[in-house]
Amino acid sequence: MAYPQHTIGMNKWDIDTPALVLDIGLAERNLATMAAAARDLGKQLRPHVKTHKTPLLARRQVEGGAIGVSAAKLAEVEAMILGGVEDILLTTETVGPRKITRLLALSRHANLINVVDDAEAAAALSAAFEREGRALDVLIDVNVGQDRTGVDPGEPALALARRVGELPGLRFRGLQGYEGHLQHIYAEQERREACRAAMRKLSDTVRLIREAGLEVDIVSTGGTGTHRFTGEANVVTELQPGSYVVMDSDYGNVAGLDFANALTILSTVVSHVHPERAVIDVGYKAASTDAGMPAVKDVPGAGYTPGGDEHGKLALEATGRKLKVGDKVELIPSHCDTTVNLYDYYHVVRDERLEAIWPIAARGATQ
Amino acid sequence: MAYPQHTIGMNKWDIDTPALVLDIGLAERNLATMAAAARDLGKQLRPHVKTHKTPLLARRQVEGGAIGVSAAKLAEVEAMILGGVEDILLTTETVGPRKITRLLALSRHANLINVVDDAEAAAALSAAFEREGRALDVLIDVNVGQDRTGVDPGEPALALARRVGELPGLRFRGLQGYEGHLQHIYAEQERREACRAAMRKLSDTVRLIREAGLEVDIVSTGGTGTHRFTGEANVVTELQPGSYVVMDSDYGNVAGLDFANALTILSTVVSHVHPERAVIDVGYKAASTDAGMPAVKDVPGAGYTPGGDEHGKLALEATGRKLKVGDKVELIPSHCDTTVNLYDYYHVVRDERLEAIWPIAARGATQ
Repeated sequence: MAYPQHTIGMNKWDIDTPALVLDIGLAERNLATMAAAARDLGKQLRPHVKTHKTPLLARRQVEGGAIGVSAAKLAEVEAMILGGVEDILLTTETVGPRKITRLLALSRHANLINVVDDAEAAAALSAAFEREGRALDVLIDVNVGQDRTGVDPGEPALALARRVGELPGLRFRGLQGYEGHLQHIYAEQERREACRAAMRKLSDTVRLIREAGLEVDIVSTGGTGTHRFTGEANVVTELQPGSYVVMDSDYGNVAGLDFANALTILSTVVSHVHPERAVIDVGYKAASTDAGMPAVKDVPGAGYTPGGDEHGKLALEATGRKLKVGDKVELIPSHCDTTVNLYDYYHVVRDERLEAIWPIAARGATQ
Repeated sequence: MAYPQHTIGMNKWDIDTPALVLDIGLAERNLATMAAAARDLGKQLRPHVKTHKTPLLARRQVEGGAIGVSAAKLAEVEAMILGGVEDILLTTETVGPRKITRLLALSRHANLINVVDDAEAAAALSAAFEREGRALDVLIDVNVGQDRTGVDPGEPALALARRVGELPGLRFRGLQGYEGHLQHIYAEQERREACRAAMRKLSDTVRLIREAGLEVDIVSTGGTGTHRFTGEANVVTELQPGSYVVMDSDYGNVAGLDFANALTILSTVVSHVHPERAVIDVGYKAASTDAGMPAVKDVPGAGYTPGGDEHGKLALEATGRKLKVGDKVELIPSHCDTTVNLYDYYHVVRDERLEAIWPIAARGATQ
């Protein structure tokens, strides 16, 4: 990790490259837009920090009305607690003695909720908390169609809820039913209908669990692409979108979202031997490609292809734009989460001036 | 960045996950194998540190006979100098006043060589060194078919060599002609022939430059996949392979390489609701996929697919292997460079015991 070169107040275009630039004015607008959307829908907001990975943005989300945040890994929970965040839902299962010991330790420093989808793992979690005379708030992770983690809706979810309800070290609080597979359905109506079908699985399951005499306080779901539609479901109590703060070019294809691209990668043309081959200093190590190629900002029709780990090639023939060695070019990441995870710092910019350097505290926090 | 949990001497399988595990015994064997290969070929070795990103391995390479190392970015050069490495070839072009100032500063702390492919960029570099009454060693970056950076072979290379020779702040030392596009041609004979054709472009260019009265001391090229064949070319003076230290599953397909996979990702099964769906804690943020999917170690026929940023799904039907929640599984990265760049530490293991934690000093060193 190198220390970033900078002077506060410098012009954005003078920042050394590659640099991850956060337009804080646009991010603030996105924060306000989602906070208003949740209020309008009558739902709590618990934004996911796996995208931005900094408590500095998490605390703004809480100041803007969020009841807390969601985190994907214990190491993200740690980074959020160090940054002063007090209410955190850990949206993935905690498995194995080392992780349980960490969760137990962290739970003394913040209000934590965790998810479970396995009776034995739940029993191990309960035993650890019981030994300390405490209990952990727990949601049952329900598979609403993503086919990743989560028990099946209906009877299997009820069975696990009952089991959790009997365990002295756990407190059954409700369900998580994350419809991650629906976030990127581009067409709005199709996405809405798929969300409704997924949310019906959740509401049927909640009814079943309530009929069995268990209380369900929390039903947590919803991402950036689906929050409006999952937010229409009565059963849902809270939304956990993450990407909306910064967005990316893939989410740019998802119809009906009112959020701006606040994240760019600043790059430099480092080689331009042939007219058709402008080479920039952004390759696989500076822009993720798991969701396709980053877009070239403000140059419609321009194409980017990686030229290995350290380089990218720009196709500009169709655009009329001419570049020369030393010119700066801005890219819009195709996938914000995995691109943010490549960088140690945000260069935080307002009105094209550098306002701050923010460490990406939970970068690499995969454990 | 979180501090890794560990106790030296612990069993490999007790390490918390996901973790990047470096089998140092296998890496040492790979280091010795490449050092012997270079000696047998009569070439100098200047291994590329863009793969391993730690001066701890770079110094072992130098102790094993390498004349120095290659680095892709100035921030990698910085990390190497901080770790005690004294001879470094920067294999990418240095463009813009900020980067030139950094190169100038670093050149007081190590013996640096840089590449150029543009007359104006070369003039800017020269002016900076001239102002201090010094001169920088420079190679002309020649495009031998990768079509990324580099001037064309022949007359264009000669013209730039002449220009560099006239600049008071630069010392023309030779050529870099990296055949990155040939590294992963799986079939050995096809790879050898493509290398010969690429190396002919270099030798023709060297002849032309020498005929023009310029001295050519250094011709640097060759990667892990091609070192034996570029090493057969008389014109080549030094080889700059990187991946051989740790290898990856994609290089595992390249015929005729005698290096072991020394790098794995240790993971845990965190969910296993259905028999056909074992879910591990390794997704896009813990294993790069730009060169395909990581392989499941020691389970022939098993398949891995990412389940988003934080999860992976294992297909084990064909293998007979049964897993349960909490089991550990080892993956072999598909692309070592981009996977190493996701982690802050190596868990260095010898004979299945943790021997050290090594910071990946140049992780994220894209500037």
